[in-house]
Amino acid sequence: MKIALAQINPFIGDFEGNFLKICEGIDKAFALSADLVVFPELSVCGYPTRDFLDYKHFTKASLAIVDRVAAYGKDKLAVIVGSPSFNPAKEGKDLYNTAFLLYQGKIIHTSHKALLPTYDIFDEYRYFEPAHEFSTIDFNGKRLAITVCEDIWNIGNENPLYKVCPMDELIGQQPDIMINLSASPFSYNHAAERIDIAKANAKRYGLPLFYANQVGAQTEVIFDGGSLVVAANGDLIREMPYFEEGVEVFDTDHLMPQKEQPKEKYQLMHDALVIGIKDYFRKLGFTKAIVGLSGGVDSALTVALAVAALGKGNVLSVLMPSQYSSEHSVSDSLELVKNLGSPYKIIPIKEVFDQYDKILQPHFEGLPFNVTEENLQARIRANYLMALSNKFGYILLNTTNKSEAAVGYGTIYGDLCGGIGVLGDVYKTQVYEVCKIVNKDKEIIPHHVTVKPPSAELRPGQKDSDSLPEYPILDPILYEYIENQQGLDEILAKGYDEALVKRVLKLVNRAEYKRYQTPPMLRVSHKAFGMGRRLPIVGKYLE
Amino acid sequence: MKIALAQINPFIGDFEGNFLKICEGIDKAFALSADLVVFPELSVCGYPTRDFLDYKHFTKASLAIVDRVAAYGKDKLAVIVGSPSFNPAKEGKDLYNTAFLLYQGKIIHTSHKALLPTYDIFDEYRYFEPAHEFSTIDFNGKRLAITVCEDIWNIGNENPLYKVCPMDELIGQQPDIMINLSASPFSYNHAAERIDIAKANAKRYGLPLFYANQVGAQTEVIFDGGSLVVAANGDLIREMPYFEEGVEVFDTDHLMPQKEQPKEKYQLMHDALVIGIKDYFRKLGFTKAIVGLSGGVDSALTVALAVAALGKGNVLSVLMPSQYSSEHSVSDSLELVKNLGSPYKIIPIKEVFDQYDKILQPHFEGLPFNVTEENLQARIRANYLMALSNKFGYILLNTTNKSEAAVGYGTIYGDLCGGIGVLGDVYKTQVYEVCKIVNKDKEIIPHHVTVKPPSAELRPGQKDSDSLPEYPILDPILYEYIENQQGLDEILAKGYDEALVKRVLKLVNRAEYKRYQTPPMLRVSHKAFGMGRRLPIVGKYLE
Repeated sequence: MKIALAQINPFIGDFEGNFLKICEGIDKAFALSADLVVFPELSVCGYPTRDFLDYKHFTKASLAIVDRVAAYGKDKLAVIVGSPSFNPAKEGKDLYNTAFLLYQGKIIHTSHKALLPTYDIFDEYRYFEPAHEFSTIDFNGKRLAITVCEDIWNIGNENPLYKVCPMDELIGQQPDIMINLSASPFSYNHAAERIDIAKANAKRYGLPLFYANQVGAQTEVIFDGGSLVVAANGDLIREMPYFEEGVEVFDTDHLMPQKEQPKEKYQLMHDALVIGIKDYFRKLGFTKAIVGLSGGVDSALTVALAVAALGKGNVLSVLMPSQYSSEHSVSDSLELVKNLGSPYKIIPIKEVFDQYDKILQPHFEGLPFNVTEENLQARIRANYLMALSNKFGYILLNTTNKSEAAVGYGTIYGDLCGGIGVLGDVYKTQVYEVCKIVNKDKEIIPHHVTVKPPSAELRPGQKDSDSLPEYPILDPILYEYIENQQGLDEILAKGYDEALVKRVLKLVNRAEYKRYQTPPMLRVSHKAFGMGRRLPIVGKYLE
Repeated sequence: MKIALAQINPFIGDFEGNFLKICEGIDKAFALSADLVVFPELSVCGYPTRDFLDYKHFTKASLAIVDRVAAYGKDKLAVIVGSPSFNPAKEGKDLYNTAFLLYQGKIIHTSHKALLPTYDIFDEYRYFEPAHEFSTIDFNGKRLAITVCEDIWNIGNENPLYKVCPMDELIGQQPDIMINLSASPFSYNHAAERIDIAKANAKRYGLPLFYANQVGAQTEVIFDGGSLVVAANGDLIREMPYFEEGVEVFDTDHLMPQKEQPKEKYQLMHDALVIGIKDYFRKLGFTKAIVGLSGGVDSALTVALAVAALGKGNVLSVLMPSQYSSEHSVSDSLELVKNLGSPYKIIPIKEVFDQYDKILQPHFEGLPFNVTEENLQARIRANYLMALSNKFGYILLNTTNKSEAAVGYGTIYGDLCGGIGVLGDVYKTQVYEVCKIVNKDKEIIPHHVTVKPPSAELRPGQKDSDSLPEYPILDPILYEYIENQQGLDEILAKGYDEALVKRVLKLVNRAEYKRYQTPPMLRVSHKAFGMGRRLPIVGKYLE
């Protein structure tokens, strides 16, 4: 039998667009003589669907497309797509997360998802009833065991979150082939874990696995694709490309092992950020980005990534020097845009700042320059950027890195503005590593930008290290607290200085109010700020 | 037996503060000769605890307080408090949501929560394993059935979300008394539902119910208290006050019915918003608010509510007229602050606007005045407000109402700024009703403010109705879509105009990116924007 994997990039809620994409996938698989084509989890509506699922009308619309896909594939081949479906039982959640096997114009089988991730960015138990029954389906002389995403992640019942292992339930029915529909998001170490779990499943059950993953970005959540075929002996047959759509066909009787793709952490981060920007713009119908270019490494990298995503003509850099700006802030920025061949503007902020200052002086009662005036400079810049954005239809890219977002080193309504945060899940120390990827063939980001001490340049001689620990000291503590979810005792047990750790944790907790109002931040780690990390603004833990 | 209900206002994660509050409650109950005092759900750590629960250290800290409460109550009386606790099993979620019965210095019983709300603002299955076993406990000659919050909301198994009814499991053990620890949030119709469910439980099981609810605001989520005692025959014995802490004692052998409190919708909304503001400031350690006063009804009501919450000396109104402002925008505002006796400043925006205009003209290529310049005015105002906030330690109150937040009628980084949104869950048509509550004894909000046509005054002669349907037409459609989660077909079936409904739904969906970056909005309905309504920014449903 010939099975095709169709790794597509759906648009959440764009049923007509997703239908066309699925039809294209069917045509390609048919042209490749496939008997069956497998699309990702919830491929008809896109994932993560979030509270659109609270609307019955949404699921009805999705199910109507499932019928149309069945009709479209009728005289071509069998199709497996994912869609929410209604739970007919009185009790339990209203919906299932379902894989539909469509053949000869009809739904011949459904498999509901049993293991519903409800942690980090995942809210599946908010919507879905888990499957309580498990059955295989015979197709084309083979018996198929069809599961959805997380269902294969409790192998040997070793995942403490779950009490059921769907393949353990299905194996008694003696299937010949495992098929899994996934929407498994990218993080820089997740592709390797995915291959491990796929191999472990194949070996445990002695069956080949065909695994179709979603690709593309959905607001801040990025999917890398990398759909998999693993032979019954655990050999990796194929890992489809990252970050691009594709349809490939495999003969179940002739599975030839290939090499997996390289998994260089910072290259993956780079590529993920580029598709994250690209899809945010494309799906919202925008083409042009605007970035405030400060001369620092974060905005330089943001512009470089945006040019990679949108093209050099579509990224406007705006240099907004103040009286506190260094000379190199302008010269380094000009060198960058020259290297990129992208447009720029220079709009100084002094006149507007002086006008604010004049108007506000009587109200400030002779109080000295402080963080107020620093923030005001950042907000004037944001106003310029938003004015240009409004006038010409740019989306403003936010350049805040994860270290800054963590400790609240940024001005709300100032440099924290933007439609999407490019580096909000990239620590400052990692920013330099991603710059190396940008510069690997030739110097795009000027060398000086990557070696000068970080500074907000909002008062004379300011450096980040005046207010914060040096980033190589700060970032590992942040990683323990955020990614590893280690508490105070556990971090101290690793030998860090107590006063320092307490100060850092307090900064992180106190900045919750700022992060609440920042744009979504492209997610590249397994624990990003935003939907995957939900903390109260009014809370006093570790303060 | 004498049972005390202690309706407290905990501070999430402030273990020492909550411990002191619990000790005070114990002292009061002891002084009232109680044998047992009942505190709300998760009273040791506060609710909703959110992802603090991902830190083991947090639960350990909470359990340490449970031990200290046991020691404190030792020679006084028995105490029931709520805290997360560890699930010792290898499988399942790491934590339980637990009620602890403490007596003579020891934990003599635990009851874990079985029904875990995972919808709207609730994420309990993200953290907690449901109880699988149910047991009563004998204390002081009575057998107690102790449950936690949602556990009593599946009476007769009629709640389709759940498959277990904890009291059905417990009733076979022949308890004498039901006790429920709750953190049941306010919405303007929830107190009545709560009494109904409490009465239905008492009648079904023929047992009295003692129900302790949390009170106070936790960022945007408001808890109204109103703790309950219901007799075995379903008579309401006592409904404790709304929006204030208190300890009351009841003799289980002499339960005398009292009247319930009035439940006037707009009075409740008013009182909830006042405590919402008050607790946000108090818990964050701030005392002073700043509001941009436009002459419109939303900012007028916001100032009035802030004065009720913080005191007239603590609310600074800033009038920021532009060349497009009407004369009455200033005169009406001055009348309001005079009525309130609260301070104000007038800071015109023209000079700064002109300076921006001059600087931006060369970049705007002769393009005409449009929404860019409208937004710029709103952003200059936000800059003034934030500058004063930074210089003097005010928290800026956001004045956006729910109708505006729904359709995106507001300027991001302009009038959408603020630390907390006061009216973000109050539709424009409801804003007028809450104004009547403010004005019920004497005119605070000037009559003219409540009758003039709504206008943003950002261009000559502008009215909201230029861009939006009139609010009495708009709000019911929004209510169907947001509160009732009705889809397009269902709304049209109620007889609304198709083009109008499509336009409104599209506006709501397209404004998701703005709502993502607005402050938390005090929740007074059963479906507010924010943590209870989670939609993708990049989505194409109903567009």
